[in-house]
Amino acid sequence: MSKTIRTRLTARPKLGLDSNAFATPSKACPSVSPGKRRESGYSRLVTSKDLQAVRGTRDFYPDDMRLRSWLFAHFREVARCFAFEEVDAPIVEHEELFTRKAGEEIVDQLYHFELHERRLALRPEMTPSIARMVLARHKQLKYPLRWFAVTQNWRYERMTRGRKREHFQWNMDIWGEESVNAEAELIAAIFSLLQRVGLGDGQVKIRVNSRALLEETLLEGVLKQRPDAFAPLCVIIDKLDKIGKEAVIDQLSDPNGDVGLSQAEAEETVSLLEIKDFEEAAARAPQDSAAIAQLRQLFDLLQGYGVMEHVVFDASIVRGLAYYTGIVFEGFDARGSLRAICGGGRYNRLLETLGGPATPAVGFGFGDVVIAELLQDEGLLPDCVRCIDAMIFPFEEEQRPAAARLATQLRAQGKSVELVMAKKKLRRVFSDAETSGAQELYLLGSDEVGRGVARLRNLQSGEECDVPLPDSLSLD
Amino acid sequence: MSKTIRTRLTARPKLGLDSNAFATPSKACPSVSPGKRRESGYSRLVTSKDLQAVRGTRDFYPDDMRLRSWLFAHFREVARCFAFEEVDAPIVEHEELFTRKAGEEIVDQLYHFELHERRLALRPEMTPSIARMVLARHKQLKYPLRWFAVTQNWRYERMTRGRKREHFQWNMDIWGEESVNAEAELIAAIFSLLQRVGLGDGQVKIRVNSRALLEETLLEGVLKQRPDAFAPLCVIIDKLDKIGKEAVIDQLSDPNGDVGLSQAEAEETVSLLEIKDFEEAAARAPQDSAAIAQLRQLFDLLQGYGVMEHVVFDASIVRGLAYYTGIVFEGFDARGSLRAICGGGRYNRLLETLGGPATPAVGFGFGDVVIAELLQDEGLLPDCVRCIDAMIFPFEEEQRPAAARLATQLRAQGKSVELVMAKKKLRRVFSDAETSGAQELYLLGSDEVGRGVARLRNLQSGEECDVPLPDSLSLD
Repeated sequence: MSKTIRTRLTARPKLGLDSNAFATPSKACPSVSPGKRRESGYSRLVTSKDLQAVRGTRDFYPDDMRLRSWLFAHFREVARCFAFEEVDAPIVEHEELFTRKAGEEIVDQLYHFELHERRLALRPEMTPSIARMVLARHKQLKYPLRWFAVTQNWRYERMTRGRKREHFQWNMDIWGEESVNAEAELIAAIFSLLQRVGLGDGQVKIRVNSRALLEETLLEGVLKQRPDAFAPLCVIIDKLDKIGKEAVIDQLSDPNGDVGLSQAEAEETVSLLEIKDFEEAAARAPQDSAAIAQLRQLFDLLQGYGVMEHVVFDASIVRGLAYYTGIVFEGFDARGSLRAICGGGRYNRLLETLGGPATPAVGFGFGDVVIAELLQDEGLLPDCVRCIDAMIFPFEEEQRPAAARLATQLRAQGKSVELVMAKKKLRRVFSDAETSGAQELYLLGSDEVGRGVARLRNLQSGEECDVPLPDSLSLD
Repeated sequence: MSKTIRTRLTARPKLGLDSNAFATPSKACPSVSPGKRRESGYSRLVTSKDLQAVRGTRDFYPDDMRLRSWLFAHFREVARCFAFEEVDAPIVEHEELFTRKAGEEIVDQLYHFELHERRLALRPEMTPSIARMVLARHKQLKYPLRWFAVTQNWRYERMTRGRKREHFQWNMDIWGEESVNAEAELIAAIFSLLQRVGLGDGQVKIRVNSRALLEETLLEGVLKQRPDAFAPLCVIIDKLDKIGKEAVIDQLSDPNGDVGLSQAEAEETVSLLEIKDFEEAAARAPQDSAAIAQLRQLFDLLQGYGVMEHVVFDASIVRGLAYYTGIVFEGFDARGSLRAICGGGRYNRLLETLGGPATPAVGFGFGDVVIAELLQDEGLLPDCVRCIDAMIFPFEEEQRPAAARLATQLRAQGKSVELVMAKKKLRRVFSDAETSGAQELYLLGSDEVGRGVARLRNLQSGEECDVPLPDSLSLD
């Protein structure tokens, strides 16, 4: 060893995460203080619009990305445990794929454009693309399909907490299974994810309802003469939480609207949504209600999965998309302070809407934004600090080829190795090793390389020893 | 066991991959034959444009996705071994981020659009977004940065083999390191990837050149009076392989073009590009050429990494993007039958172009399309067949809650478990287990559940035994 090592490593610092975000929001440039911005031409430039991320989108710096990768790894691991297969589709689709079913809020929020005489759009959600893929190979696919995807979706909407213009979403869908056994598998998968990230003890409730139940009830009542009004009615009442009871009643009874109930009918409809007790719902449902029987079957089964204590019936859950046909569900933080964490349901008629054969289907979407807010509120965001196995430092450029050989050997063993590229002082190497979270440091001076060794220092224990360098032949 | 098991499992079938594609191209609907299409309303619909993937894009069905995940896992694993940190940026950026440097082919190929009075574009490549991120936190970041990303990029271009309108790209970039030690790390990382996927024995060559070398030579020669013409000159000569020597000479000597050389000057320039021997290049370069010294240093270092036997000097490599300033490199299949597999180089002035401080940087992009073509040509595409740990089959719905408990228990152990959701014949269960690549089958009849067990069959050996079912309490 040609130089004395004086610095001693302490525990790795926690690099930490943005204190109020899962990733780096674009609206501010958090790391350049306003005061600094005025100081130089460069800093002013960062505030120029085209050099910022588009409003409502996020950059993922390494700290952000480690957290995202941690979450996505859980998504994928749960999907693997539930024997789902991953799929993906292009983020750009023909606009019409999303606008075929009109009247939905989602249509106004499309990132859509015309290019070379084609109307295109960024997907606002994954389900239409999945349906398109199923349709294209309908006769070749082996049902039931258990498909999942982790994709970025785009909606141009007003930004509030937990709502950006892009988000990632974990989708799990089962195609070709009619029974509520499919819903049960999906809801169990959601709880498996929640448990993994530390939210399995009641911090999240799944609220379950059935559109079929609401439909049965309304078609015997206020919608008896006009069953077609049911889909637009669902789009309106889905906004109950957001716009409030009075506004929903106004929209349902708007004589120029898609539903056009009387004031009394609108009030009666909204009162139906207030039922939180399943037995009360059963009592108010038509006799021998198939929807009630299905819900009962689902709840029994969720008991088998051991998750029923965190599942509640809630007649106000209808979901905003027009394509749902049966059981629907949403996950909420128990305090009710955030938007829905996830949501899904049965959409048995979607393939028919696209001109395909009737094919039962059920699925959910689980975004990356609201869950991150909740994990942060609960103090459950993990410390995803950087960590590597080894850093290699050649004191002079003469030792660099030997350092390269050593790096190649260690990397071939699967070790994560940072080879120091610049000349620097040893003290700086130690502080860099600390920042990188290195476990080991290999030092190569002329003395070591002359003896065919590197000096290995364990950065946890401080112990040192010589280890042989690989010769150039051993790499071939 | 209430039923006799008659079927015996053979080896799992290889589900295989599309014989001529890494993923499912959109231009055809490969699994619906033209004859069939005319038979039903549904099949006709699949041919309707909005129900197909956008031209030039790919759907990833489970078989395709397993292959893509296999490749991406290698990208990420190499990056981890080289101690790079993953980052990501939104796929939508302000259009001007990409058009600031005019005159490039890439600008005409943008997926660009105007939305709510903002000019936006899908990224055609990742580097400008990375530069934007570096710029935004320039003073806080700790150099050198070793960043990587695996992102989808979009270019509206003519489709040929290995060229689609979207592709995924693995990017590795080093910011803040001036020496060729950075280039060496990057080229070593490319070979590490090639070795992992079975292409490390010379099937791929990296061709290296230096724009600085060409610039030095031309600025002492034909561009002496007009150094500004160097960048557009590079964009033209990058097309040499594609459009041929004559067309390049024509464009260089086009009096209305950006370069405007004489015919003789254009011919001389092209002759410089034909040098494949490094010592010849050194002899023709200006004396004490810094670019030659750098190349020599790089080649020596790549010897240390053990990869120099697959690296060649090639004066025709200049890269199509205007921002490169120094060493540039491209990976090609040794037979030369495909487009470049990967490419990169040094772009020390990009941050300045965006108004930031001078910051050395070097990086490469490695696409998913050409490498898949090469792996296929070489017979190296892996058999990514589906494989799960266990399938669980309750004979009747009465056994389903017990089956759900068992599934939950096995999944909590990290096993991949498919719980059969539909009623079906036992023979069908066996064939489904084969399709899913299941290792074990758990059968639950009334007899088993009555005794508190499941019948476990090892699908490889055919051996069977009873295993205890978890009771409902044990899951809480």
